[in-house]
Amino acid sequence: MKKLLNGRDSMVEDMIAGFVAAYPGQVARGRHPRLVRRAVPKADGKVRLLIGNGSGHEPIAMGFVGEGMLDGNVVGDVFAAPSSDLILEGLRELATPAGTVLLISRHEGDVINGMEAAMLAAEEGLAVRPLWMYDDISSAPRGEEQDRRGEAGTLFVYKILGAAAEAGRGLDALVALGEAVRDATRTLGAALSPGISPLTGRAMFGLPEDEVFIGMGVHGEPGVARRKVEPLRDLVAFMMDALAEDRPLVPGAPVVPLVNGAGGTTMMELLSVYGEVAAWLAARGIPAVSPAIGSLSTTQEMGGFSISLLAADAEMLRLWRAPQATPQFPVIR
Amino acid sequence: MKKLLNGRDSMVEDMIAGFVAAYPGQVARGRHPRLVRRAVPKADGKVRLLIGNGSGHEPIAMGFVGEGMLDGNVVGDVFAAPSSDLILEGLRELATPAGTVLLISRHEGDVINGMEAAMLAAEEGLAVRPLWMYDDISSAPRGEEQDRRGEAGTLFVYKILGAAAEAGRGLDALVALGEAVRDATRTLGAALSPGISPLTGRAMFGLPEDEVFIGMGVHGEPGVARRKVEPLRDLVAFMMDALAEDRPLVPGAPVVPLVNGAGGTTMMELLSVYGEVAAWLAARGIPAVSPAIGSLSTTQEMGGFSISLLAADAEMLRLWRAPQATPQFPVIR
Repeated sequence: MKKLLNGRDSMVEDMIAGFVAAYPGQVARGRHPRLVRRAVPKADGKVRLLIGNGSGHEPIAMGFVGEGMLDGNVVGDVFAAPSSDLILEGLRELATPAGTVLLISRHEGDVINGMEAAMLAAEEGLAVRPLWMYDDISSAPRGEEQDRRGEAGTLFVYKILGAAAEAGRGLDALVALGEAVRDATRTLGAALSPGISPLTGRAMFGLPEDEVFIGMGVHGEPGVARRKVEPLRDLVAFMMDALAEDRPLVPGAPVVPLVNGAGGTTMMELLSVYGEVAAWLAARGIPAVSPAIGSLSTTQEMGGFSISLLAADAEMLRLWRAPQATPQFPVIR
Repeated sequence: MKKLLNGRDSMVEDMIAGFVAAYPGQVARGRHPRLVRRAVPKADGKVRLLIGNGSGHEPIAMGFVGEGMLDGNVVGDVFAAPSSDLILEGLRELATPAGTVLLISRHEGDVINGMEAAMLAAEEGLAVRPLWMYDDISSAPRGEEQDRRGEAGTLFVYKILGAAAEAGRGLDALVALGEAVRDATRTLGAALSPGISPLTGRAMFGLPEDEVFIGMGVHGEPGVARRKVEPLRDLVAFMMDALAEDRPLVPGAPVVPLVNGAGGTTMMELLSVYGEVAAWLAARGIPAVSPAIGSLSTTQEMGGFSISLLAADAEMLRLWRAPQATPQFPVIR
């Protein structure tokens, strides 16, 4: 399978080079070449937000570095969490007395390496607070939410914490807010066709031509249910029912939907998905507000999408809509 | 091949329904359901910009309706130009004494139906000026630019004319500016893998596993050259050489690059392409400024990309960077 690459050894570096060349007013390489940071750091009094993640899912996470969102992203190899040493480099480089929230999307490598980096940073006297993010209802049952995977719904945490940090919120308050956003978010995904690994050049999984997998992870982790291809309305209703069963929705209370494309799904389809999500919510008297629609957290050119719902309170909604100046996060209105 | 649809008969309507539900502050359906227009029309003194195009290429064009860009988009069936009657409905609905520029991306159906609609509108006394857009250097030789196809580089016209119209520019001046932008733009595309037609469920063309087609059109029109898969740097150099041969670039004079994804190409790859474009320009002393990178004009999930270059003068650059409030056009800085 074809990929637009100079070669496997340089593909992450080539991507970062293109990214910082494209958006020089907003982002720059850190002293460590795998750290992407803001071009113009904020004053020391602002708490920093840092995330480490494997590459291959762009624009998440480096596309969301910039004013109003992340301060930095430590970029790992394709689908591989960055090492604890590398995350520690990022924590050191961004460190200020106000402290850093280390965002950790719950996948095994990210948790192990992130927690180790946070511990090492603490031993060096840095103020670092890890924040675990998880939202995928297919990856562990109700009551065991802390064992779930982080999926596209983690973007609500990035954006809302980013706006709060920009406004001067302190370290403890940011962690509490991040936990509240996480706890108010649920995600469920569906996969239609595999992405191609740039490492192997091969499809990341197999999927029968007439089936859809529910609950596929961002690295191609197997889904929890198979369904035959069916009208979109029925598929979305199945997924919305599951989301609402996991965390009941309250008529009249606003919900922010995020329809995320897995990479190879057309905007035509994502908009149609959103239409069904909005209709499902409207039929139950639940206002859908300020949605985001796009291929924001991807698995190469995988076909599929996820629906994330944030049961937002007034503060979360205000921060979700706050301006940001990142290279690639959509404008929310 | 799987698509997320309720059915072929309703897919365009379902998409439009999702789109206007998602962005109610910015866009609305017209009286005619295939017209997507601004939610809040500007005062009558502003010249309107309208485009008709086949659907299946989203976010182009309806994603770019809104303040600072288009006033309306007449949405055709998948890969099919809207009829002259439908375009005429759009022209009537948007009509004001200040007049309308009808943007026509040069493809046969769009030209025939657009010109007919413009004539019929003129017979009704409406002030309508068609503007032909073409930029694809692979589709006709130098000296026959007016026979070329409209490709992703037409976005420069949308954005720059949109900003000028918002600032109060008159009908004749807008057409002249649009022609100048068009004449300063060149595009060349490459295809790696076919998109799947939502009409037939089948791949839109065949392509050997080890080959890249140069000059593939947005509807899967055949390319003009085949190349073996090669390092990205060499492919981009081949394309940049061809673009610069078609319209020479001047050291020191700024160029705006647009790296457009065909739909199924990852952001990782598009950023890497941009890196090679920027390096090619830098090596020749040509400043690359305010780029746009993304899957903005797509052919379903086709794998591939195009490079567009705008040799921008100061006014074009200012208008390219002007604020806009569309649902899906990226923020340019």
